[in-house]
Amino acid sequence: MKFFKVPEPTIMRLSLYSRILEQMEERGIPIISSVELGDAVGINSGVVRKDLSMFGEFGVRGVGYNVRELRDNIRKLLGQDRNWPVIIVGAGHLGSSLAAYPGFTQRGFNIEAIVDSDPALAGTTIQGHPVIDWAGAEQLIKEQGVRMAILAVPPDAVQSVAQRMIDLGIEAILNFSPIILKVPAAKAQVQNVDLTVFFDLMRFTSNLNEQEGLRPQSSSLRGLAVR
Amino acid sequence: MKFFKVPEPTIMRLSLYSRILEQMEERGIPIISSVELGDAVGINSGVVRKDLSMFGEFGVRGVGYNVRELRDNIRKLLGQDRNWPVIIVGAGHLGSSLAAYPGFTQRGFNIEAIVDSDPALAGTTIQGHPVIDWAGAEQLIKEQGVRMAILAVPPDAVQSVAQRMIDLGIEAILNFSPIILKVPAAKAQVQNVDLTVFFDLMRFTSNLNEQEGLRPQSSSLRGLAVR
Repeated sequence: MKFFKVPEPTIMRLSLYSRILEQMEERGIPIISSVELGDAVGINSGVVRKDLSMFGEFGVRGVGYNVRELRDNIRKLLGQDRNWPVIIVGAGHLGSSLAAYPGFTQRGFNIEAIVDSDPALAGTTIQGHPVIDWAGAEQLIKEQGVRMAILAVPPDAVQSVAQRMIDLGIEAILNFSPIILKVPAAKAQVQNVDLTVFFDLMRFTSNLNEQEGLRPQSSSLRGLAVR
Repeated sequence: MKFFKVPEPTIMRLSLYSRILEQMEERGIPIISSVELGDAVGINSGVVRKDLSMFGEFGVRGVGYNVRELRDNIRKLLGQDRNWPVIIVGAGHLGSSLAAYPGFTQRGFNIEAIVDSDPALAGTTIQGHPVIDWAGAEQLIKEQGVRMAILAVPPDAVQSVAQRMIDLGIEAILNFSPIILKVPAAKAQVQNVDLTVFFDLMRFTSNLNEQEGLRPQSSSLRGLAVR
């Protein structure tokens, strides 16, 4: 098999396709066309076909894709079919809402625990997940072989918490704090999720911000090149 | 002035630039080069220059960009310099964490209230924001001219809540529930934020998912075309 380089926007679209296909399967729909799949996600069917063709032949021309088969293949490609232990850092509102976020398990993630430095919280549970202190985190990461951490800590704590996690063996960090975390790529991979970006985006695409000769261009993770 | 169509990935990058420029200004840095700005966001300096050139000449070749001037211009382009009243629907963990999310005000958003159908919550406050019922929401939306709503409700309530918001005059919806909300474009603009996409992305870019001949391609909102 050839090796492909998969761009981030493609992965994001595959993730969206898998969500749609799950819903289709729940509703008992056996076949979906690239046009229907594109409509559901809000992108062009040509992009759908191109994305899916990268990974082999899932579809039949003029008929469509077998929903279950396509879903299984995408799940496998994205690693959703396996169990990934993950640890959340920060037991505040953001950490708690991520612990409660639906679909975590469906995506193959097991939240092993929520780490918090507040000694009053250690030993409690949030959404059924145990809250542990840093000593507990060290033990858990080693014992369970946890390689991924989700940071939901205040902005001024992000860098030090990330460093501490890396020292404990974490290799992948998803940072939800609204500050861009930078870590040497050799030490760990970081994904920064700045939610305010979506607020800016909503304002723009909503046509509420027409000014200065700018017009929003509607699209949804189309992976557009800069034009 | 010419009208530009602005693709979503460009808006997302501009949003990230504005975040970096804020941090630069706080640290008293007067000038930034496209290479430095690109490094901070994790993208190529050529893309930075192309993005910024769309909106006129902010920089001086070989010197860089005036941090404060560039920040002010991007803020204006993104509408961050004005006040946008916004209403959050859902007073659970997700709604509460969004109400507490730092940078909301800095991005020009005023959270007017959090709407919840639980009568026990009406009259309380979350993070200093009043919790109101639907009757209160109707009044508030009319009186304050609220046009934007953020949905943080359970998946099975998303569609009906969105319809109710649109009936009350809401024109733009940011949906944080992990289900793709579809609304006729003539009625309202919707941005769906599916957080599980970022989990899939983290797994992929972290090299933890090397299998099946796939290799992640490192990039961060580069707006890449499908290759």
